[in-house]
Amino acid sequence: MIGQLNHVAIAVPDLKKASDFYRTTLGALVSDPQELADHGVKTVFVELPNTKIELITPLGDNSPISLFLEKNPDGGIHHFCYEVANMQESVNQLNAIGIRILGDGNPKIGAHGKPVVFLHPKDCLGTLIELEQI
Amino acid sequence: MIGQLNHVAIAVPDLKKASDFYRTTLGALVSDPQELADHGVKTVFVELPNTKIELITPLGDNSPISLFLEKNPDGGIHHFCYEVANMQESVNQLNAIGIRILGDGNPKIGAHGKPVVFLHPKDCLGTLIELEQI
Repeated sequence: MIGQLNHVAIAVPDLKKASDFYRTTLGALVSDPQELADHGVKTVFVELPNTKIELITPLGDNSPISLFLEKNPDGGIHHFCYEVANMQESVNQLNAIGIRILGDGNPKIGAHGKPVVFLHPKDCLGTLIELEQI
Repeated sequence: MIGQLNHVAIAVPDLKKASDFYRTTLGALVSDPQELADHGVKTVFVELPNTKIELITPLGDNSPISLFLEKNPDGGIHHFCYEVANMQESVNQLNAIGIRILGDGNPKIGAHGKPVVFLHPKDCLGTLIELEQI
């Protein structure tokens, strides 16, 4: 079912400082920030040779990552994303064995314009897994 | 400084169950388990097309990941590892700007036979970063 690791998302309290850490301290290629108002986050991407690190910080009053940052004020890994070739087929397989999909259980259009779902961490070794159709 | 994302390490309470999740539920290629007595962990690797997921569980009485699992009984992302070309040069650069290296500050031979260091999460956006010389 899963293909490449598309990205690892790190929630951070200060996007400028986090971008500087990756760009200057770790010497990586970091994109310009992008505001995703519909998703309540502001992001930059760290481009590694084989995958991406997504740095995300809350945007607006009801950001889905605000609570996570309250619990992890220094920041922390929020989720990671695996690519799948066929989202509906993957969802059907997961439903059949009782892996819970967050929200109403249907794929949404994610931050990058592609169908995504998030799986329940309790069903996935305590980790929040995003699946993105490529 | 950093190159590829070498692996993401997920600490799990039950390695057999975690291996089955990745092999059967997510349909990924999972290695046989390996006991690393010197490191106090038992591991399997999930081979993705572009990187690896390392599933780790405590081995013996003084495992370095036991406390993490007490705090995260379902499991969770423990660390992730970036490749560097020259460990001593990377360590010197990090020392020069005050990024703390765990332990005595010197590279150790890691679980895969290569020099590694771990950086202090407080200096790295709340994430535990391993650097491994390739």
